[in-house]
Amino acid sequence: ERSYNITLLPGDGIGPEVVAVAKDALSLVGSKEGFELRFQEMLMGGAALDAVGVPLPDETLAAARASDAILLGAIGGYKWDNNEKHLKPETGLLSIRAGLGVFANLRPATVLPQLVDASTLKKEVAEGVDIMVVRELTGGIYFGKPRGFGTNDKGDEIGFNTELYAVSEIDRIARVAFEVARKRGGKLCSVDKANVLEASMLWRKRVTAIASEFPDVELSHMYVDNAAMQLVRNPKQFDTIVTNNIFGDILSDEASMITGSIGMLPSASVGESGPGLFEPIHGSAPDIAGQDKANPLATILSAAMLLKYGLGIESAAKRIEAAVTATLDNGFRTGDIYSPGTTLVGCKRMGEEVLKAL
Amino acid sequence: ERSYNITLLPGDGIGPEVVAVAKDALSLVGSKEGFELRFQEMLMGGAALDAVGVPLPDETLAAARASDAILLGAIGGYKWDNNEKHLKPETGLLSIRAGLGVFANLRPATVLPQLVDASTLKKEVAEGVDIMVVRELTGGIYFGKPRGFGTNDKGDEIGFNTELYAVSEIDRIARVAFEVARKRGGKLCSVDKANVLEASMLWRKRVTAIASEFPDVELSHMYVDNAAMQLVRNPKQFDTIVTNNIFGDILSDEASMITGSIGMLPSASVGESGPGLFEPIHGSAPDIAGQDKANPLATILSAAMLLKYGLGIESAAKRIEAAVTATLDNGFRTGDIYSPGTTLVGCKRMGEEVLKAL
Ligand SMILES: CC(C)[C@H](C(=O)O)[C@@H](O)C(=O)O
Ligand SMILES: CC(C)[C@H](C(=O)O)[C@@H](O)C(=O)O
Repeated sequence: ERSYNITLLPGDGIGPEVVAVAKDALSLVGSKEGFELRFQEMLMGGAALDAVGVPLPDETLAAARASDAILLGAIGGYKWDNNEKHLKPETGLLSIRAGLGVFANLRPATVLPQLVDASTLKKEVAEGVDIMVVRELTGGIYFGKPRGFGTNDKGDEIGFNTELYAVSEIDRIARVAFEVARKRGGKLCSVDKANVLEASMLWRKRVTAIASEFPDVELSHMYVDNAAMQLVRNPKQFDTIVTNNIFGDILSDEASMITGSIGMLPSASVGESGPGLFEPIHGSAPDIAGQDKANPLATILSAAMLLKYGLGIESAAKRIEAAVTATLDNGFRTGDIYSPGTTLVGCKRMGEEVLKAL
Repeated sequence: ERSYNITLLPGDGIGPEVVAVAKDALSLVGSKEGFELRFQEMLMGGAALDAVGVPLPDETLAAARASDAILLGAIGGYKWDNNEKHLKPETGLLSIRAGLGVFANLRPATVLPQLVDASTLKKEVAEGVDIMVVRELTGGIYFGKPRGFGTNDKGDEIGFNTELYAVSEIDRIARVAFEVARKRGGKLCSVDKANVLEASMLWRKRVTAIASEFPDVELSHMYVDNAAMQLVRNPKQFDTIVTNNIFGDILSDEASMITGSIGMLPSASVGESGPGLFEPIHGSAPDIAGQDKANPLATILSAAMLLKYGLGIESAAKRIEAAVTATLDNGFRTGDIYSPGTTLVGCKRMGEEVLKAL
């Protein structure tokens, strides 16, 4: 029997609740498909800060590296918001991304037919939206040096960061994005600010060069300000989007809100080799933590991405996705996606319904 | 009789058409209110590149500096898109902003009751949206040094830019934003990425410090990714937003698209002293240039901002705004805001209707 080691990083807020549910779904699908999953739970984020004083303990990174895939809940909360940078939960997240080398962040934004009314966009605009944002995750202004604080020549205090991309970083994320686009609608839109930024000019030049390896994919370019508009104006024009770390942070969140159901959206972060990191795109939602109100579906769908992109077991991923669809078809909804005429359930019950459907 | 010198920068694409119309509106309102406007037309953008080989001729900047206010149409077009950086129309725009020291860019995003259907957002979400984005315009990653291309220690080609803010830059834009918020709904939301970027940490610290000078304004902070979501989820939660140059570029365009009528939206760029720069937020729309199809209302409303923020003649600004409202109430629409039951008109005719209403 095949067996895989999965590191669980429940994290903060609603993280532990949604990860517990997704773990059960993973175990069940494993037993159905004839593989075993061994889980190891490790500390990260605020939970790690409280327990051991750092947001990413060395043991956590080591365990994550040694495993076959990582499932993360969510990190952060008001409690740690004013911490110094090296003691922020977010710094733990950035460190594990860098430590695992997961440079490609795949963020689907799909409007499910059952949930089209959840979008604030008009039905005819939201219906059928199916976008994949491929965000560069281990470079750019998040990691660029020099960074920090200082004084300028007028004696004025300054804060600064460096947006920086190397050809090798652009080429590898471009290849991932072209591969993704090829398996989807065959259209890739690269988003940058090449009319102003040198880092973007190099980005555009390299993405254009890599395009010759993928003659079957149609490449277009768009400035980031226009992309932010076009996502609102006509999101259906997009198939796959590739962009840098900071623009991807902003645009993938905008795209996810266009679906109206961010409690539904998973993400995958993968590298050249080594284990991938899978997590819902929603945050730790401290205001509803511990109240059995969270929507576990984004984490369950992240588990499906883990099976597909992390372990390469697409049949198992499909089973989970089908079970989620069935559960929605059966009318079950957590508070965030509730609408009159459906059945309001909590996090645990939603998990049970998915297990039944599995 | 009071008299003012106005520099007109028609620019490219539809720029000349919309500026011509706005000029007539300015002249008429001047004669009604008892002041004289003297206009001087100068080259900028692609038009300047074609005529004299640079996107911002020295004479243009000198004339602009010597005038009381500047009205700009739009710049750019496919023709110049692949030019080297110093020969891009956009570089002319950045140079005039820097040259005039207009560090505060005010971008209203207002959903007019007559045009609520133009938004892709559901009526109940779009209705009543009235946001002012105050964007820092002469600092940050647009201007930060070092910038350029190079080679890293692995011999790999790199492109890089510097996001940098000094305390004095943050303090002055924060003060403008608090002043604006005070005259509006009394709420200011500062947008940053202080959980990751040092430049944003300093931004948040200084905006918080300046808040003590404005005890009557309610300050909140939001991360940029969340702001991009919240603008889609519930734009009415925002009154005034203050943010850096690049985030402001993205969010103000997103906010404008939420109104559904970017052909309606003006902007003002002002400095500590010296003339301000006023321009519609839409682009040069080369595809409809010269066809008398452009919507001149954004430029006419930019002329109103010129009167209010540039010359301090609020009564004249109000007259123009009222004339625009009346023209919409009379049912006139250009193609971009047309809906069945209204009267479709071209750029010139729309201008004539505004003049009549004046
Ligand atoms: C928490 C934060 C550091 C993080 C990011 O900006 O990458 C988050 O917004 C995300 O998108 O995963
Ligand atoms: C044309 C471009 C350089 C400019 C900017 O990014 O500032 C434009 O998008 C704007 O917002 O005025």
